Amino acid sequence: MTRKPLVTALIAGLAVSAVSVVQAAQPNLSAELREKAKAIIQPIEPAKIEHPAKVDLGRQLFFEPRLSMSGIISCNTCHNLSLGGVDNLKTSIGHKWQPGPVNAPTVFNSSLNIAQFWDGRAADLQEQAAGPIQAQVEMAMPHTLAVAVIQSIPGYVETVKAIYGTDVVTLDHITDAIAEFEKTLVTPNARFDQWLKGDDKALTATELEGFKIFYESGCIACHNGPNLGGNSFQKIGVVEPYKSTSPAEGRAAVTKKDEDRWYFKVPTLRNVELTYPYFHDGEAATLEDAVTLMGRLQLGRTFTDDELKKVVAFLHTLTGERPQMPLPLLPPSGPETPRPDPFK
Amino acid sequence: MTRKPLVTALIAGLAVSAVSVVQAAQPNLSAELREKAKAIIQPIEPAKIEHPAKVDLGRQLFFEPRLSMSGIISCNTCHNLSLGGVDNLKTSIGHKWQPGPVNAPTVFNSSLNIAQFWDGRAADLQEQAAGPIQAQVEMAMPHTLAVAVIQSIPGYVETVKAIYGTDVVTLDHITDAIAEFEKTLVTPNARFDQWLKGDDKALTATELEGFKIFYESGCIACHNGPNLGGNSFQKIGVVEPYKSTSPAEGRAAVTKKDEDRWYFKVPTLRNVELTYPYFHDGEAATLEDAVTLMGRLQLGRTFTDDELKKVVAFLHTLTGERPQMPLPLLPPSGPETPRPDPFK
Ligand code: HEC
Ligand code: HEC
Ligand code: HEC
Ligand code: HEC
Ligand SMILES: [Ca+2]
Ligand SMILES: [Ca+2]
Repeated sequence: MTRKPLVTALIAGLAVSAVSVVQAAQPNLSAELREKAKAIIQPIEPAKIEHPAKVDLGRQLFFEPRLSMSGIISCNTCHNLSLGGVDNLKTSIGHKWQPGPVNAPTVFNSSLNIAQFWDGRAADLQEQAAGPIQAQVEMAMPHTLAVAVIQSIPGYVETVKAIYGTDVVTLDHITDAIAEFEKTLVTPNARFDQWLKGDDKALTATELEGFKIFYESGCIACHNGPNLGGNSFQKIGVVEPYKSTSPAEGRAAVTKKDEDRWYFKVPTLRNVELTYPYFHDGEAATLEDAVTLMGRLQLGRTFTDDELKKVVAFLHTLTGERPQMPLPLLPPSGPETPRPDPFK
Repeated sequence: MTRKPLVTALIAGLAVSAVSVVQAAQPNLSAELREKAKAIIQPIEPAKIEHPAKVDLGRQLFFEPRLSMSGIISCNTCHNLSLGGVDNLKTSIGHKWQPGPVNAPTVFNSSLNIAQFWDGRAADLQEQAAGPIQAQVEMAMPHTLAVAVIQSIPGYVETVKAIYGTDVVTLDHITDAIAEFEKTLVTPNARFDQWLKGDDKALTATELEGFKIFYESGCIACHNGPNLGGNSFQKIGVVEPYKSTSPAEGRAAVTKKDEDRWYFKVPTLRNVELTYPYFHDGEAATLEDAVTLMGRLQLGRTFTDDELKKVVAFLHTLTGERPQMPLPLLPPSGPETPRPDPFK
C-alpha cells in the first residue's frame, strides 16, 4: 500500500480535509463541498468540433459492419452509442461469438483518458482504433482487407479524397477519422456538473451526502479529474487482494514489470449507471457490488447500508447528456467490394 | 407454367405491347414507355406519420438489443438501416452465431408488401415483429422475458403509459410501435420514380433501355406495383427448375399444399442495389447473377451481355432516399432489469 506514495498521500490529505467538511454547518455544506470538489473534479465541456467532415466520416466508420470479417460487427456493436457506449456484457462477444477477455469500457469521454485500454497499451484513440478491427475475438479483419473494403466503396473514396486529398485510402485515414469522431463523444451537463457549476438544487440531499462520503472516504484519490478516473493506473486490491479468474494482468502486460500486476487504468465514473457490469472482468453486476468492493479492497472500509445507498445515489448524478447524432447512412458497396465471411 | 393463368396472360399481353414500344420513334420512347410503366408501377410516396410518439418508441425498440437473450442483437443487426435494411449475408447470423435458414429481406418499403416473410406467413408488420424476438436463431428471447425487460425500464414504462394509457406493458405494445416505425421506412424519390413522374432526364439512355428490356421481356409480370414486387407469390423456376440446397419450401409451408412448393413472395426490387446477395437462399451474389437466372428460370430467356448490363443499370435507378433519422437513445435499465445471457 505504500508503493504509490502519491495515492497514499492523497488519501491521507483527504482524510484531514474530510474532518473540516464534516464539521461544517449544514447550510454551507453544499457550497463548502463544491469548493473542495472543484479543486479535483472538472465538469465535462461540450465537444469543440474542429473537423466536421472527419467527424462525419468517423461516425460512418464507427457504424461500419463491413470493417468486420463477418459483415455484422461494427464498433457500435460493443460500444453501443444508443446505450452507454458499451455492450453491458461481462466480457464482449465478438467474431464467431467468441468471448473477449475483458469488459468493454465506454467510448464516452474516453478522449479524456491518459491512455486507452484497461492496461493503457494504446497511447491515444487513433492508435486504439486499429486494434479491434484486426483482433480475432473482435472484428477479425486483417488491416489490408479492411482498407481494401473502404477503397472499394466509391462513396468513401470520394470523402477520403475531399478530406485527405488522396485517392489512396490508408489505415491511418480510417483510424484518424474514427478518433476525431470519438472525441465528440462527450457527455456534458450531468446533474453533478450542474452542481459543480453552482446550482445547489441540482443534487438532492441524499446525493450530496453520497458525494461527501465518496470524497471523505478517499474514493477521490483515484477517481478524480474531469472523468472521475481515467488519469492514472492503480492497483485493484490495495488493502485486500482482488480475486479474479480473468487472465488479464493489467499494466504489467505493457511494462513487463511484475510490480505492475493488477494495476489497471482507473475507469471513469462518468455515466457509470449505464456501464454495468463493472471492473475489468465484469464480475461486479451492480453499482452496489462495485462500491462495496471498492470500499473494502481499496480503502479497507465497510460501508453501512445507508452509506452505500447514498454513494450509489451520487454515482447516478454522473450520467450526462449522451451525444445526439443522426444515424449515419453508409455508402453502397461497389462491384468489387470484398464480401463478408462470417465463418472464416 | 400454365398453372398461373394470370402470370401467363400478363406475359403474353406484355409481349404484344412490347412490339409497339420497339417500333415507337426514338424521341417518344421515354414518354411512351412512361405511360405503359405508370399503368403498373407506382412511385414510392413519402411516409405519412400518423403517430409520431409510436414511431419514436418503435425506433427505440427496433434498435433495442435488450430485446435479445444475448443483449447484443437488435432488429437493426439484421436489418441495418445504415445499409439497405439488410445484413448483406447469404443467410443471417443470429443468437450464438447460428446461421438462419434464409436471406433477410429488407425492411425498407416492406409495409407495401401483401404479407411478411418469404412465405408470407405473417399477415402484417405487427404480426411479423413478434417472430424474430422469440426465434431461437434470431434473438432467442421468450416473449414473457422480452416484455419483462421493457416493463423493468422506467423510461419505456413512461412512454407506454403516455401512448397506450396503461402501466402494464404487453407484447402488443411492443409490436404495434415497431410496426408503426417500420411504416415510415419508405424510400421515395428514386431516379426511376423521378422519371415516372415526368422527368425525362432522370434516366440515362442505357438505363431507359434497361427498363424497356425489363418491361418487354416480362419481368414486369411479377415485379410490378409500387414495390416492383411484394404483391404476389410466384414460383421460382417457372421454365427451368431452381436448384437450391436450402430447406425453405416457400408458400407450401403456410398453405400445406404441395402445389405451392417453391412459391415465394416476389421480393421488391426497390433498393435492390443495396440488398445483395439475392434470392431466398442468398445464392446469387450479384445483380448480374440474379438477372441472368431470372431470365432463364422464369422466362426461358438468355440475355446478351449488353442486355444484361442495361437491365442491371436500370435496377440501380430503383435506389431511393433512405430514411434519415436520429440515432435513438435508449432509456437506462432499472435495478430489476433482467441481465442478458449470451450463452443461454
Ligand atoms: C467485440 C467487441 C468490440 C468491438 C467490435 C470493438 N471494441 Fe472497443 N473495446 C472492446 C473491449 C473488450 C475493450 C477493452 C479491451 C482492453 O482494455 O484490453 C475495448 C476498448 C476500447 C477503447 C478504450 C476505452 C478506454 O477508455 O480504455 C476504445 C476507445 C474502443 N474500444 C473503441 C473501439 C472502436 C473505435 C472500435 C471499432 C473500430 C471498437 N472499439 C470495436 C470491445 C470491442
Ligand atoms: C487506489 C485507487 C482507487 C480507489 C481509492 C478507489 N478506486 Fe474505484 N477503481 C479503481 C480501479 C483501478 C478500478 C478498476 C478495477 C478493475 O476493473 O480491475 C476501479 C473501479 C471502480 C468502479 C467500477 C467502474 C467500472 O466502470 O468498472 C467503481 C464504481 C468504483 N471504482 C468506485 C469507487 C468508489 C465508490 C471508491 C471509494 C469507496 C473507489 N472506487 C475507490 C481505483 C480506485
Ligand atoms: C438474426 C437476424 C434477424 C433479426 C435479429 C431480425 N430479423 Fe427480421 N428477418 C430476418 C430473416 C432471415 C427474415 C426472413 C425470414 C423468412 O422469410 O422466413 C426476416 C424477415 C423480416 C421481415 C419481413 C420482410 C418481408 O418483406 O417479408 C420484417 C418486416 C422483419 N424481418 C422485421 C424485423 C424486426 C422488426 C425485427 C426485430 C424485432 C427483426 N426483423 C429481427 C432476419 C432477422
Ligand atoms: C414468374 C414470376 C417472375 C418473373 C417473370 C420474374 N421474377 Fe424476379 N423474382 C421472382 C421471385 C418469386 C423471386 C424470388 C425467388 C427466390 O428468392 O427464391 C424473384 C427474385 C428476383 C430478384 C432478386 C431480388 C432479391 O432481393 O432477392 C431479382 C433481381 C429479380 N427477381 C429480377 C427479375 C428480372 C430482371 C426479371 C426478368 C428477367 C424477373 N425478375 C422476372 C419472380 C419473378
Ligand atoms: Ca463496464
Ligand atoms: Ca437479399
